[in-house]
Amino acid sequence: MQNLANFSKWALAGLLSLSLVACGGGEEKSNDTAAAAEAPKQETFEWKMVTTWPKNFPALGTGAQYLADNITAMSGGRIKVKLYAAGELVPALEAFDAVSRGTAEIGHAASYYWKGKVPAAQFFTTTPFGLTAQEMNAWLHVGGGLELWEEVYAPFNVIPMAAGNSGTQMGGWFNKEINSVADLNGLKMRMPGLGGEVLAEAGVTVVNMPGSEMFTALQTGTIDATEFVGPYNDLAFGIYKAAKYYYYPGWQEPGSALETIINKDAFNALPEDLQLIVRAAARQANSQILDEFTAKNYAALETLINDHGVTLKRYPDDVLAEFREASDVVLEKVAAQDPMSQKVYESQKQFKENVMKWSDISERAIINARAGN
Amino acid sequence: MQNLANFSKWALAGLLSLSLVACGGGEEKSNDTAAAAEAPKQETFEWKMVTTWPKNFPALGTGAQYLADNITAMSGGRIKVKLYAAGELVPALEAFDAVSRGTAEIGHAASYYWKGKVPAAQFFTTTPFGLTAQEMNAWLHVGGGLELWEEVYAPFNVIPMAAGNSGTQMGGWFNKEINSVADLNGLKMRMPGLGGEVLAEAGVTVVNMPGSEMFTALQTGTIDATEFVGPYNDLAFGIYKAAKYYYYPGWQEPGSALETIINKDAFNALPEDLQLIVRAAARQANSQILDEFTAKNYAALETLINDHGVTLKRYPDDVLAEFREASDVVLEKVAAQDPMSQKVYESQKQFKENVMKWSDISERAIINARAGN
Repeated sequence: MQNLANFSKWALAGLLSLSLVACGGGEEKSNDTAAAAEAPKQETFEWKMVTTWPKNFPALGTGAQYLADNITAMSGGRIKVKLYAAGELVPALEAFDAVSRGTAEIGHAASYYWKGKVPAAQFFTTTPFGLTAQEMNAWLHVGGGLELWEEVYAPFNVIPMAAGNSGTQMGGWFNKEINSVADLNGLKMRMPGLGGEVLAEAGVTVVNMPGSEMFTALQTGTIDATEFVGPYNDLAFGIYKAAKYYYYPGWQEPGSALETIINKDAFNALPEDLQLIVRAAARQANSQILDEFTAKNYAALETLINDHGVTLKRYPDDVLAEFREASDVVLEKVAAQDPMSQKVYESQKQFKENVMKWSDISERAIINARAGN
Repeated sequence: MQNLANFSKWALAGLLSLSLVACGGGEEKSNDTAAAAEAPKQETFEWKMVTTWPKNFPALGTGAQYLADNITAMSGGRIKVKLYAAGELVPALEAFDAVSRGTAEIGHAASYYWKGKVPAAQFFTTTPFGLTAQEMNAWLHVGGGLELWEEVYAPFNVIPMAAGNSGTQMGGWFNKEINSVADLNGLKMRMPGLGGEVLAEAGVTVVNMPGSEMFTALQTGTIDATEFVGPYNDLAFGIYKAAKYYYYPGWQEPGSALETIINKDAFNALPEDLQLIVRAAARQANSQILDEFTAKNYAALETLINDHGVTLKRYPDDVLAEFREASDVVLEKVAAQDPMSQKVYESQKQFKENVMKWSDISERAIINARAGN
């Protein structure tokens, strides 16, 4: 990058005559004239935040709390946000409905939990072999993704914002080695969502069960494998006690976005400065949660390997190729379910094809060059 | 990632008994009790923002404007930020001094411009073969980097915050193919900063000249090659008219962080809610600028290749290996210059060694698996 201090006049003139592309994320672009003209209203708001996480669950529960606290503090207490963990006000999977009908003004969750009600929603969390966290953020905030998300939630009176990302997750915990596609035959694996549909397409026996039963099922051999999150969460959850092989990469969740969902009436009742504060707090949580996962995962991984005897393994190439092909089939099917899903899928797919060309010669190339292999 | 709704009681109890790691970036953690107790002060502040960019320069100049506008709007006009482009209030390279002495309350720049005055500052932008944007953010906000940055700037009465990132840059523009290390001999390349020192270490003749002379120097053969930014900026600048080979990866700048610098007295004069608003606006710009680069670079690259006949080339493996070795030598030298540089270098180096282990099996592994090669 260049210091631009010494640009000659011709260069500057050339730059200034460009048709300039403004920063994206138009919804966050300020209208400072309007905002500055009116004195801040001193009306106060009491907001309830529902979440799909246990209180203080690493990075997810604590991330929701960080968001709630920041809105309260940045607004000087004009919005007071009180957080309710999963089950405290409503059950986890009713968070969207609670925000939709105004039982809670705000929520913190992941959009793919609502796929039964809103099929297109699952594209805003992650897709198998899909966008990385950085690419997802670029699609949402500059590539038109957020506008589509708003369109998807509009019929439910809900406004979405990105508010966190897990980064690339792990591929899952196994009690059986996977050395080739042949080993997928008869494998019993627990994996919810699109990942599970891909596994089924690839011939795996997909077992559905609540997270609470996963541990015993691994120990008794009811399942051979299960997906969870990544080292930071998985260490805390103790899965290493029931499975020994830890596979990567997390092809099923390359970078899972979290969401803030806000009741539209509650949001529209805020003066403009408070609306912008809520948006900024969501964006701040969006970064902070990814930063925390990025910084904390490696230490947890080392503990798993060094203190708990976990064996780290990479999925074989032919297995990844099989999953990748199956993913394309599954995504096409999901997209074909309804016109909105198709529209979101097409936008994201087009963005991915393009951004991959850039990621291949930028992030991917430097990470490979840096590693020297 | 799991829906945690069905966790059994024992699992929840286990989680809650963990010694929980709060979200990092402690400086942004709110103290909502204190903030909520006091009514927002209605005092207003007029802030001048100096920058190192031409007005509206893609993603950099427009990013600074986005930051200025957001502070104004989010504060309901209680802070009015007026932006001055490079040279309008002070020359680009005097922005740090201007903020330090209070001529301007805030600035938007890149920390490595201040290396003559503050040698340790350059570690907070980027280093050859160093951290990616996501890793840099994790180091700054969770890994202790921001606290070190504050320590480095404290003697100058300046508070730093991350406020943008270019992502991985390109390796530079060449009029001569580089097929092996032998081709570095006699090569005349313009590259400022640490990258230039690495080139010199590797036997390249490094030529220093202002950006304004770069274009003619390429055309007349005074230089064979030059570094700039990436497709989005380089297309706008028209460098393809003077050089035909466009090399990747940008080993010299794997993810260059931009900064907001704030006069400490001006910051301390703000009530707590406005301080948090300024921090949130910086974090928002930090994301938005990276999102813009990530989303826009590929289209610019296609235009360069398809419409302007630019040839995309990857540095050969042996050249990258040579640069990588030289980088270690240069960074050790820079770190040895003063105790603060050593301290920052050690922290960043330790973080990099650890986070690379995680990035290798997460981002790198999924990007490779996704590409199928």
